[in-house]
Amino acid sequence: MKKANIAIIGMEVMGRSLALNMESKNYTVAVYNRTAEKTKAFVEGPARGKNIIPTYELKDLVDSLESPKKIMLMVKEGQPVDNFIEMLLPYLKPGDLIIDGGNSFFKDTIRRNKMLSEKGILFIGTGVSGGEEGALKGPAIMPGGQKEAYRLVEKIFRDIAAKAYDGEPCVDYIGPDGAGHFVKTIHNGIEYGDMQLIGEVVWFFKNIGMKADEIADIMAKWNDRDDILRSYLIEITADSMKQKHQGSDEFLVDRVADITRMKGTGTWTVQSALELLVPIPTIAAAVFSREMSQDKQLRLAMAKKLTIASGKFNGDKKEIIEIAHDALYIAKISSYAQGIALLQAASKEYNFHLNIGRIAKIWRAGCIIRAQFLDEITKAYESDPDLPNLLAAPKFASFVESNTWKLAKFIDVAHQCGVPVLAMSGALDYIMQITSPVMPSAQVSALQRDYFGAHGYFKIGGPKDPELVVNEEGKVREFHTEWLLPGRPEREITK
Amino acid sequence: MKKANIAIIGMEVMGRSLALNMESKNYTVAVYNRTAEKTKAFVEGPARGKNIIPTYELKDLVDSLESPKKIMLMVKEGQPVDNFIEMLLPYLKPGDLIIDGGNSFFKDTIRRNKMLSEKGILFIGTGVSGGEEGALKGPAIMPGGQKEAYRLVEKIFRDIAAKAYDGEPCVDYIGPDGAGHFVKTIHNGIEYGDMQLIGEVVWFFKNIGMKADEIADIMAKWNDRDDILRSYLIEITADSMKQKHQGSDEFLVDRVADITRMKGTGTWTVQSALELLVPIPTIAAAVFSREMSQDKQLRLAMAKKLTIASGKFNGDKKEIIEIAHDALYIAKISSYAQGIALLQAASKEYNFHLNIGRIAKIWRAGCIIRAQFLDEITKAYESDPDLPNLLAAPKFASFVESNTWKLAKFIDVAHQCGVPVLAMSGALDYIMQITSPVMPSAQVSALQRDYFGAHGYFKIGGPKDPELVVNEEGKVREFHTEWLLPGRPEREITK
Repeated sequence: MKKANIAIIGMEVMGRSLALNMESKNYTVAVYNRTAEKTKAFVEGPARGKNIIPTYELKDLVDSLESPKKIMLMVKEGQPVDNFIEMLLPYLKPGDLIIDGGNSFFKDTIRRNKMLSEKGILFIGTGVSGGEEGALKGPAIMPGGQKEAYRLVEKIFRDIAAKAYDGEPCVDYIGPDGAGHFVKTIHNGIEYGDMQLIGEVVWFFKNIGMKADEIADIMAKWNDRDDILRSYLIEITADSMKQKHQGSDEFLVDRVADITRMKGTGTWTVQSALELLVPIPTIAAAVFSREMSQDKQLRLAMAKKLTIASGKFNGDKKEIIEIAHDALYIAKISSYAQGIALLQAASKEYNFHLNIGRIAKIWRAGCIIRAQFLDEITKAYESDPDLPNLLAAPKFASFVESNTWKLAKFIDVAHQCGVPVLAMSGALDYIMQITSPVMPSAQVSALQRDYFGAHGYFKIGGPKDPELVVNEEGKVREFHTEWLLPGRPEREITK
Repeated sequence: MKKANIAIIGMEVMGRSLALNMESKNYTVAVYNRTAEKTKAFVEGPARGKNIIPTYELKDLVDSLESPKKIMLMVKEGQPVDNFIEMLLPYLKPGDLIIDGGNSFFKDTIRRNKMLSEKGILFIGTGVSGGEEGALKGPAIMPGGQKEAYRLVEKIFRDIAAKAYDGEPCVDYIGPDGAGHFVKTIHNGIEYGDMQLIGEVVWFFKNIGMKADEIADIMAKWNDRDDILRSYLIEITADSMKQKHQGSDEFLVDRVADITRMKGTGTWTVQSALELLVPIPTIAAAVFSREMSQDKQLRLAMAKKLTIASGKFNGDKKEIIEIAHDALYIAKISSYAQGIALLQAASKEYNFHLNIGRIAKIWRAGCIIRAQFLDEITKAYESDPDLPNLLAAPKFASFVESNTWKLAKFIDVAHQCGVPVLAMSGALDYIMQITSPVMPSAQVSALQRDYFGAHGYFKIGGPKDPELVVNEEGKVREFHTEWLLPGRPEREITK
């Protein structure tokens, strides 16, 4: 019997779809599942008559493979991944490769890569984005691990990956050990931000009296070929909002419960940001909003206790739709700027050597945040790899400079109509903060901290000189005022 | 020689101040420091002639104490605490007590309490707030641990604690193991929020052309006896902003660098909130803003790349000052509501059995967030311990209902003047979200997740019925639409 080219463990929807995708590209795929029933159902169902080899013992799975063995885990992140690695190890030889294609926590991936490396086993932790359809027809793939490990699966991954409009497959070597899973996590965080921003715009449209299909029409227009917002998430918003509820005249979206669940990657994104001191207010707003959505009983109780008065919108509807469009675009740029800043900080901290332009390229198709917009990000980093922040890219900078007033305007009108816009606000305030050479709020806080806690402060040159005051060796000078002593003398702190 | 009543290890500013405070209340205090010099400098300096016993070996320190021994660690959180516990253990007997008075991570405190309990040693992890002056003259103390452990130090703690205006000492038994350190952490998170909110108001005042002393005068007025904003942080803002820079005509606040450092408790607060699924956008905004303040070089670089146009304020100055006052108060209520929700969630998760009213009482004096406002919180929870959220307390609810438009107005005017107000926005959007029986943004997100990931969704009764649709057993019904199939059938998910 012909040996299989690759094995997939885990016959849930993602594992099954990837197996079918690989088989359709002329690979022979061995499959295995913890419970035999799923494997049977798969090979007797959608995999019938295909080059997909069912196995019911891990030893048989490994034996069915050509060498070096390539085994891809599509199981739940966490303990199951460790369990399968442990069970596979007795059957593997140095040079064999395990691939974890789940949404694993990147620090687990770093640990597993190290542990397996010491035994000579190669390990890839890879993000696979695109859901069922993506896995089946072409996902975006973000593999991290040894470069030689990537070479073993490069051809398969390129064959099964989504292709961008220019034919480029949406896969590329991301970096060592946890780089792939980290990038996938941030991809998901950015996805949370996109979804929340769209949701806030829809809430606003609804509050000014638009019906679901009207809103869907606007979204469909925003997905026009040349529209800057054109993207998969805008497309499915338009498409899903037209769906009727059980053949009635009601729209499904009006009957769906306002509860957005989540699995962990959004929270991991914010946790990583906190560890790395990177502000990501828009993505955090998305996570907080999902949390608030889940506390339905609290909101129902609170709605009975107090009502925040809201005004009626009586502006120009056409005008506010255009403002909302540009506001959403600017908020999106801000949100991506935050996510990319986090990627860069992690790249430094964990030696991931990430190439932002190439990552954006991978995201152009296959994945949930796919959009033409990502091409602009690639171009921005190709023409200036040392951009201090995405917002500084000339094309984005000029749009932001001339249109940020629209984001502020949208936020104000939304608030007046009683619509919370936490992610939009985070996007605007981020832009305002990051372009402030002096943040007077921080001056006050620094002074307060010195007053109550003797924590010291630095100085700037003066009202027109925002640079830090340094000594002759270029070291920033630090001071403390003796607030409790008469005359409140100031002294320099020397450490 | 008379035995000491209590020992303090760690002769940094907080340890020294607490020793002097205890001694002034007629306790004999044994002291120790890792390096002998600090102990010597202390007993030959501020502690000269006082009932403070210097020791230079841990054995001597323990020997100098009456039984049961009470030893308070005032050392850096983390490894040093574990080290001292280990070094002390050989000299301790069951029933002796170790107190950790540093800003320890509450999960470390839970671990230490468990480990020591198994050896019969009592352990208290306690928050001590108030900085140097507080420690010396009366801090707020938040002790967590065994109740019998608290009884051993209750008298000392009550004697040295700050006294509220009604004479009540600002200390109370908080709860088991990590409860005290958790409450102190959230106290600090709330403090971050307060500081950021004040900073944003000051930034706005500065941007509409006010000088530091003018702003200080406004803050001083806001600290009037009967003003709802009256608090220590407002007081020191007023006081510190009048300070001149090195005897010049410039104000110190204008020369202080816009860099707000932090040590960890603010970040821990947000991390805990993420773990417990509690949205705290205002406190997160404060942490993010500090991070942004620290990236001074990035902001200087970005300011050269793009400029966000801002308008000139040409409204009524007196009116906007009044609006800012009420906006700040509402934002503060919202921020405390977030912090208290987090306390309640942790209380449930970690069995802390926290009493919110009594915690607010402790915070009325001694600590950094001390304010009359806290009395209202105590009253609110005394008259209704089951409040779903602080914002639902009748007194706060009615103020919020009639004045939230001012917070929205302030945010809009600030944005128009180019002032980012991330914490203010978080406070407003939190209020709007938590009072929304239906969040249409979450309806859209739920639909999107089902579309791209087959994640399923719940339903609500209808446009006028925001309640979840349940089955006959009262279980929430879950659905999925087959988006890729013709006719897009909907099916119920049964698990």
